[in-house]
Amino acid sequence: MEKGNLGKIETKYYTFGEVSNQLLLESGEKLGPVTLAYETYGLLNSARSNAVLVLHALSGDAHAAGYHEGEKTAGWWDDMIGPGKALDTDKYFIICSNVLGGCQGSTGPSSLNPVTKQPYGLDFPVLGIRDMVNAQEKLIDHLGIDCLLAAIGGSMGGMQVLEWMFSHSQRVKSVIPISIALRHSPQQIAFNEVARQAIMADTRWNNGSYYGGNPPNRGLALARMVGHITYMSDRSMAEKFGRRLKDERQPFKFTADFEVEGYLHHRGKSFVGRFDANSYLYITKAMDYFDALQGQNSLLKLKDSRMKVLVIAFKSDWLYPLYQTQEIVRICKKAGLDTTYCEIESEYGHDAFLLEIDEQTHLITHFLERVKNGD
Amino acid sequence: MEKGNLGKIETKYYTFGEVSNQLLLESGEKLGPVTLAYETYGLLNSARSNAVLVLHALSGDAHAAGYHEGEKTAGWWDDMIGPGKALDTDKYFIICSNVLGGCQGSTGPSSLNPVTKQPYGLDFPVLGIRDMVNAQEKLIDHLGIDCLLAAIGGSMGGMQVLEWMFSHSQRVKSVIPISIALRHSPQQIAFNEVARQAIMADTRWNNGSYYGGNPPNRGLALARMVGHITYMSDRSMAEKFGRRLKDERQPFKFTADFEVEGYLHHRGKSFVGRFDANSYLYITKAMDYFDALQGQNSLLKLKDSRMKVLVIAFKSDWLYPLYQTQEIVRICKKAGLDTTYCEIESEYGHDAFLLEIDEQTHLITHFLERVKNGD
Repeated sequence: MEKGNLGKIETKYYTFGEVSNQLLLESGEKLGPVTLAYETYGLLNSARSNAVLVLHALSGDAHAAGYHEGEKTAGWWDDMIGPGKALDTDKYFIICSNVLGGCQGSTGPSSLNPVTKQPYGLDFPVLGIRDMVNAQEKLIDHLGIDCLLAAIGGSMGGMQVLEWMFSHSQRVKSVIPISIALRHSPQQIAFNEVARQAIMADTRWNNGSYYGGNPPNRGLALARMVGHITYMSDRSMAEKFGRRLKDERQPFKFTADFEVEGYLHHRGKSFVGRFDANSYLYITKAMDYFDALQGQNSLLKLKDSRMKVLVIAFKSDWLYPLYQTQEIVRICKKAGLDTTYCEIESEYGHDAFLLEIDEQTHLITHFLERVKNGD
Repeated sequence: MEKGNLGKIETKYYTFGEVSNQLLLESGEKLGPVTLAYETYGLLNSARSNAVLVLHALSGDAHAAGYHEGEKTAGWWDDMIGPGKALDTDKYFIICSNVLGGCQGSTGPSSLNPVTKQPYGLDFPVLGIRDMVNAQEKLIDHLGIDCLLAAIGGSMGGMQVLEWMFSHSQRVKSVIPISIALRHSPQQIAFNEVARQAIMADTRWNNGSYYGGNPPNRGLALARMVGHITYMSDRSMAEKFGRRLKDERQPFKFTADFEVEGYLHHRGKSFVGRFDANSYLYITKAMDYFDALQGQNSLLKLKDSRMKVLVIAFKSDWLYPLYQTQEIVRICKKAGLDTTYCEIESEYGHDAFLLEIDEQTHLITHFLERVKNGD
């Protein structure tokens, strides 16, 4: 099949939850007005039955595919979204929004608090993944879609997929959670907490009040460095960097002299230009609190569902190990759902969901065909 | 066998390398005078043939066993060292010294620079594991020991064991490297670099000049937190903490509310009271530079050696995965050495070498008997 490109894309914005109708959060607090930045690719059919919601990971955004005006790099999942691709815009209407709590156009801690007319900072309420998904549901309402054909996403996107599955099962015909767990293990919480501490230890963080001044770039870069180690596999790092020194002539000095160190520094530094430290705190906390099965008789709700499930995992992903995706599969089978599970060989570690395009394309293309045809 | 206790122990000090006879370092720089803090347990026999050198890990020290005056907690490997234990003080003369570059009595960046009469700080030369071992050799000379019965240690202690094996093969009859690699992979370097960056990002670090003022405790605690995650296994964390909250009534707040977070904070905070941030930088760098096989025809040197080797690894250790210890074994076999390898079942991760006492005792007791008897 010939693959095409989407070309120029513009981000759109939807605002809801004005004072009289604020979003009720999992914590019991209310938030509003709320803006979601979102993009769409392809066309909604007349039956409004071909919508696929793409959910992004921790550092992702609404710009999943195509190019913004003047941009040289396409959206973060462009290899998967477009004409003839896994999420085929000739067939499907693709939606991707920046999560609530984010910093790429959606309402988050860097947004203006309507009460104080200042950025929220730590006055922003602590969020759950459920709140992100409830906000997405408002967007789906706004777009006039009763039922999504599919919800798909990797990593934290996978958590949102699970939330759609367990809490909004009437509004989604199929789900594709990738490289994710039903809930974070203490090890996953621990890595996130180290990242948060790195941000909060930066004196520039200033208890979350740094907007208009100097943001805690060093702390945020450090948080990103920790993250990056967990996104790669031991093997992919070994293949990419080995033990090469940046400068062979000076092996005994006290700076970052291995190539892997330089790479991490670079990834940390380039991250601070596009991400807000407080958003990093709020979003990682939402991930840690998430428990797909917590207190909602989730399995009972799915009892009469005809939902189809495709769970994808990658063998070298040590951040979300296979036993966790297998647990998702067990739960889905227990609920009687039509569930397909695939463990893909890959050396990319957790990052594989962004990089292993061919295998995922094959699986997802056929799965969505089945869902569309009601097989 | 009845196991006894060593009782009260005192740390001793040996100083060498005065100006006319300084220690030549791997970097080409010279350092002196050098003091090593060390402890001994048991008695050296008249043939001076029963000495076992214990090498400590990154955060360890010379106090491997017994109690100092007034102490309530015994030395870090007390379960392994004493009458009737794996390193049986009724049979062996055990030596453990704090590494060069350390902060527990041996010369390191917090020591006074004899030239400036101020603490060295970053004027301390960058060290290699080889330098630590060369300093230990001076101590062995001082104690009148020509040949060690064994050198044993886990983690960074294992690196020193490997260095004894490859560079001082005439002075050691057997070696027991535990939970270690021939060299750091980029992933291991990356974790160390994140820890170093955490320290250096703390404004109190002040380019290494903080002695007499406020040390970079927050950065050092953060470095230790990163380390602790890598020392435990996913499973041991899950069994120890699960997803329990510290305070069930307040799940939605923005502090460390999972038990695992509180544990990491505690470990970080208790570490800063006993460790110097600059030593952490120097020692982790020495580990990253270490390459047991680098440029010394190491294998050739071992060709006619009758050295015995016992390599120990733990299955849940993901910081030093089994493929790395297996590589040590392959190299030893290739060199024709009498090599025993044991992978021990354990859920403790990298920390297992400090915790899995029974299995190690069994293996080491029999191994040392063989070495002693020249079997």
